Amino acid sequence: MFSNLCRLFSGTSASFQAYSNLAAKLRIHSIEATCASNSGHPTSCSSIAEIISVLFFHPSGMHYFPNDPKNPNNDKLVLSKGHAAPILYAAWSEAGLFPTENLKTLRKINSDLEGHPTPRLNFIDIATGSLGQGLSAACGMAYSMKNFEKNTNKVFTILGDAECAEGSVWEAMNFASYYKLDNLIAIMDINRLGQSDPTMFQHDINQYKNRVEAFGWNVIVVDGHCVEEVVAALSLARHSVGKPTAIVAKTFKGKDFVGIENLMNWHGKPLGDQAGKVIAHLKGLIKPTDEVLKPTSPTGTAVAESKNPFVIPPPNYTANSKIATRNAYGDGLKALGKDPRIVGLDGDTKNSTMSIFFQQTFPDRFIECFVAEQNMIGTALGTSVRGKVPFLSTFSAFFTRGFDQVRLAAISEGNVKFAGSHCGVSIGEDGSSQMGLEDISMFRSIPGSLVLYPSDAVSAYKAVELAANHKGVAYIRTSRPATSIIYANTQEFEAKSYVVRESNQDRITVVGAGVTLHEAIKASQILEKQGIYIRVVDMFSVKPVDKRTLLACASATGKKVLTVEDHYVQGGIFEAVSGTLAQEDVRVWGLHVNELPRSGLADELLEKYKISANQIVIKVKEILG
Amino acid sequence: MFSNLCRLFSGTSASFQAYSNLAAKLRIHSIEATCASNSGHPTSCSSIAEIISVLFFHPSGMHYFPNDPKNPNNDKLVLSKGHAAPILYAAWSEAGLFPTENLKTLRKINSDLEGHPTPRLNFIDIATGSLGQGLSAACGMAYSMKNFEKNTNKVFTILGDAECAEGSVWEAMNFASYYKLDNLIAIMDINRLGQSDPTMFQHDINQYKNRVEAFGWNVIVVDGHCVEEVVAALSLARHSVGKPTAIVAKTFKGKDFVGIENLMNWHGKPLGDQAGKVIAHLKGLIKPTDEVLKPTSPTGTAVAESKNPFVIPPPNYTANSKIATRNAYGDGLKALGKDPRIVGLDGDTKNSTMSIFFQQTFPDRFIECFVAEQNMIGTALGTSVRGKVPFLSTFSAFFTRGFDQVRLAAISEGNVKFAGSHCGVSIGEDGSSQMGLEDISMFRSIPGSLVLYPSDAVSAYKAVELAANHKGVAYIRTSRPATSIIYANTQEFEAKSYVVRESNQDRITVVGAGVTLHEAIKASQILEKQGIYIRVVDMFSVKPVDKRTLLACASATGKKVLTVEDHYVQGGIFEAVSGTLAQEDVRVWGLHVNELPRSGLADELLEKYKISANQIVIKVKEILG
Repeated sequence: MFSNLCRLFSGTSASFQAYSNLAAKLRIHSIEATCASNSGHPTSCSSIAEIISVLFFHPSGMHYFPNDPKNPNNDKLVLSKGHAAPILYAAWSEAGLFPTENLKTLRKINSDLEGHPTPRLNFIDIATGSLGQGLSAACGMAYSMKNFEKNTNKVFTILGDAECAEGSVWEAMNFASYYKLDNLIAIMDINRLGQSDPTMFQHDINQYKNRVEAFGWNVIVVDGHCVEEVVAALSLARHSVGKPTAIVAKTFKGKDFVGIENLMNWHGKPLGDQAGKVIAHLKGLIKPTDEVLKPTSPTGTAVAESKNPFVIPPPNYTANSKIATRNAYGDGLKALGKDPRIVGLDGDTKNSTMSIFFQQTFPDRFIECFVAEQNMIGTALGTSVRGKVPFLSTFSAFFTRGFDQVRLAAISEGNVKFAGSHCGVSIGEDGSSQMGLEDISMFRSIPGSLVLYPSDAVSAYKAVELAANHKGVAYIRTSRPATSIIYANTQEFEAKSYVVRESNQDRITVVGAGVTLHEAIKASQILEKQGIYIRVVDMFSVKPVDKRTLLACASATGKKVLTVEDHYVQGGIFEAVSGTLAQEDVRVWGLHVNELPRSGLADELLEKYKISANQIVIKVKEILG
Repeated sequence: MFSNLCRLFSGTSASFQAYSNLAAKLRIHSIEATCASNSGHPTSCSSIAEIISVLFFHPSGMHYFPNDPKNPNNDKLVLSKGHAAPILYAAWSEAGLFPTENLKTLRKINSDLEGHPTPRLNFIDIATGSLGQGLSAACGMAYSMKNFEKNTNKVFTILGDAECAEGSVWEAMNFASYYKLDNLIAIMDINRLGQSDPTMFQHDINQYKNRVEAFGWNVIVVDGHCVEEVVAALSLARHSVGKPTAIVAKTFKGKDFVGIENLMNWHGKPLGDQAGKVIAHLKGLIKPTDEVLKPTSPTGTAVAESKNPFVIPPPNYTANSKIATRNAYGDGLKALGKDPRIVGLDGDTKNSTMSIFFQQTFPDRFIECFVAEQNMIGTALGTSVRGKVPFLSTFSAFFTRGFDQVRLAAISEGNVKFAGSHCGVSIGEDGSSQMGLEDISMFRSIPGSLVLYPSDAVSAYKAVELAANHKGVAYIRTSRPATSIIYANTQEFEAKSYVVRESNQDRITVVGAGVTLHEAIKASQILEKQGIYIRVVDMFSVKPVDKRTLLACASATGKKVLTVEDHYVQGGIFEAVSGTLAQEDVRVWGLHVNELPRSGLADELLEKYKISANQIVIKVKEILG
């Protein structure tokens, strides 16, 4: 679009010199910082130096308070190509947030200027570094600003060309145009070179232009090293109506690094003994100018969301009814939805996960993400940055699709709540591809996560409140079949285990959750008739493990524990329990799904995979001899 | 393209009546089978009835032996929208593979006609059911046929419109056009309706056409219920040169189901009391014709790949050298590459994972997949269906991107080998987004998987051979830092643990792997000087756990075990070991990464996260009192 603009302006654009000068300075900072750390990606910084310069200091770029990066009125930048962190750090430093001397602490163990951006830095909202995720987070932020906050903030994101091979980018592209996120501006840094090879399309800019246009965006092609073109494109982008805008910038990796620019084998390498020569050259590019660059302040009057705890009234279930925990999840989310911070998201499964109860009551705070789980997670993360508390749901099996996004949500310190329905073989006939059998393991491995596995409607309903009040990633595992009510509507829950059946003659503790708790209760009734008493524990909280309750039960029941779970053994309830008790004088046995399951009726499958009441009876007798 | 063809032919196309008749029969089978199972997706079957009819019985469709579905000369069909399984089963049955009476065993526990297709059926190559994955697998099959096998087979795949929101589809779209897979034909079933809502673009066919064209494909738009148009499009597609072809078919969900066609709330529902009326209507659509449909046989002379075991010569490492296990992985893969069944794949990290050693020696059997891990896994799975043994590599952290694909590879009984480099905090400065800290857990949870975690170059080299000979998913975890050689070049390995240091005075067994094994060895040397002897075990095989060796060591060392791992605790080595020993009189302690780590030098991070030699010394003394 602007293919000649840079040449037209050439020689006449004195007023832009300051931006070129700053670009050279940012390049120098990037070189010096990565030399100091002896690692990092200076060439990946260099290709976006003019873009960063304009974004941070031109009115066409970001409007923000440089000393108040958390101000809710700031425009936002997500550096999706997180390996270019040094130039982002340099820009904030040049904007005045912290002394430029600090830049040389890059990647040091006591510095928050890490190898890739994390929210340990107050100016980072979203961790990046695993590629192709920034655009989804930016979508969530832009969606929240436009639809929930009704403010005029803009969200910028910079993508590398290599990461545009990630499917998650195209999920986000669809999402942004479908929801008309005209406050979203994506800058694509087409620097031609990946880590180990040139990118798929190298400098064939039309390959990007055509794809992004077909996905429903405005597209502006620029020379990414021409300040004038970047300014013009951003000015247009800021005024887009009804469509997100992509600025496809042709750039050179290692731009202005003499002997390095546009060459392979310089990815992720500090310049070493080339640094001096390159820095000298860059200094030579800095020309006198009177202009002093200053960031543009935003004008909004938004205030940050409250952090008050969430409270919902008790549920109102009939004691003898049978209600699936997924339905109770929907009920709980609907009750919680009275708080305007709550956002619901689903991936075209809302009539299975029962998030539809929330959607029907609060349609304006529900985001249909279609069958694109990776983007759903990134979008939810983006809304959480805006102070929202997103609850997103799909089948528990399908969260595996976004494990990397869940991982990055945790690194981002995201306050994101996941609800996975249709766990385990108890879903029945749909077969193994639809059965979540590794979801407990996956969510347990997320740092700081809360993992709740309710067994009845009351606890499922209350799990929603607990998840909302947990700071960080929370996971609620719900089941397909309708199950009996276990608890009174007035029961309060913590992230603990609950004893649901006990006597002073108990000889073993059986730990269940979800459908297996009901099987364990049935087994206890069968065994009782045979004079064998067992204690039954509801492992409502899988993480944290309630060691105190488990150990007390084990101690009272012959130091024997049997776990029963509709999940694979690895990383599941058995390993959580046996790991927790590994230093105690307790023996732990487990029943769990031990092979790839198949289609069948739920009860048939519980029996076949040996997690039924009948199998518990057999196993308990075997253990007790 | 063919927007008028159907109307032009209308009334004159007697020769196509047999295909329409068969489509009606296939619809009836789909209704009857899902009624018999009282679950399933008849309306999703109905939208592709004409497409299936033509694909199975017209020369423009698949060429195959209906009674020999595994014949390597057959064209292949991947039903990416796996929930339409009943009509696929019906087609194979109508082709003569099994009696149509069997169709009513759909979803029954003793029937292999599962809710979604799995390779328990001999005519299924790839399990589907988790959406958006079929095209990647089809890419792998087509790539193998075109480039490795040099045959003229075609690969067909049918995608639903809802699943086209999945980013993995677009990763595969890029891959197919980049590699000019003109033997690949994707049929997109645009039936307008998803599970819980209309799809993003409903019947706006151009939204699909524009996207797929921009991604570099031929696109043909057809009325998916017009046999003539489907035939014409497939005929063109079969003769494409240099480009894959997408047939974008406008269809109706529940086509010809009176009172149901094109209506919401009929996803995944059997017809119940509507079935009789609908079947009667469908029977009325069947008109007399003399034509008898028969599949077209293929003409190739390919033979299946051998299943001989893989053998590589011993490595040739110098005893006192330091070599990273990732380098040894590259060496092993290069050695293995002499066997033409071996295929290497990487996601633009080959100079980090060191699969580059294979690529440099066998460039024709290396597939650069760029930064698109989901498609890389699906592509690898596709090559494994062709008898190849794919080894794919990226950073261990980034396999989380494709967890759902790994899961489906296992359900597909795929013979796929994963190598994840840069595990744990020992990568150093890049920070937490680049550190694989949940990969052991993830790969352990895959049914039938082998998980190897070599600690030195010799065992890493030999791990490649073991992985190749394992039937199913195998994972090799490699480390970034150079580490000492532990084993002799002549050492043979099994999926076991190995004692690397022992005495008859050992008071505890310390289990390490990768960098922590070296830390444990260092700790043993420090402790020995203080008169404390420890046994050190190399947990080379994390799955299966070598219970015999671990228990023997524990029994000989005071029944105490300490695991040390560069991984989170959940689902990792500690839980694998404590779970394995949970019924034994053994106490197990663990050192593992207990919080979200940060950037720093590798040694600093090992110390900070308490998995260093120094921390092992402290912990051992604490345990021994």
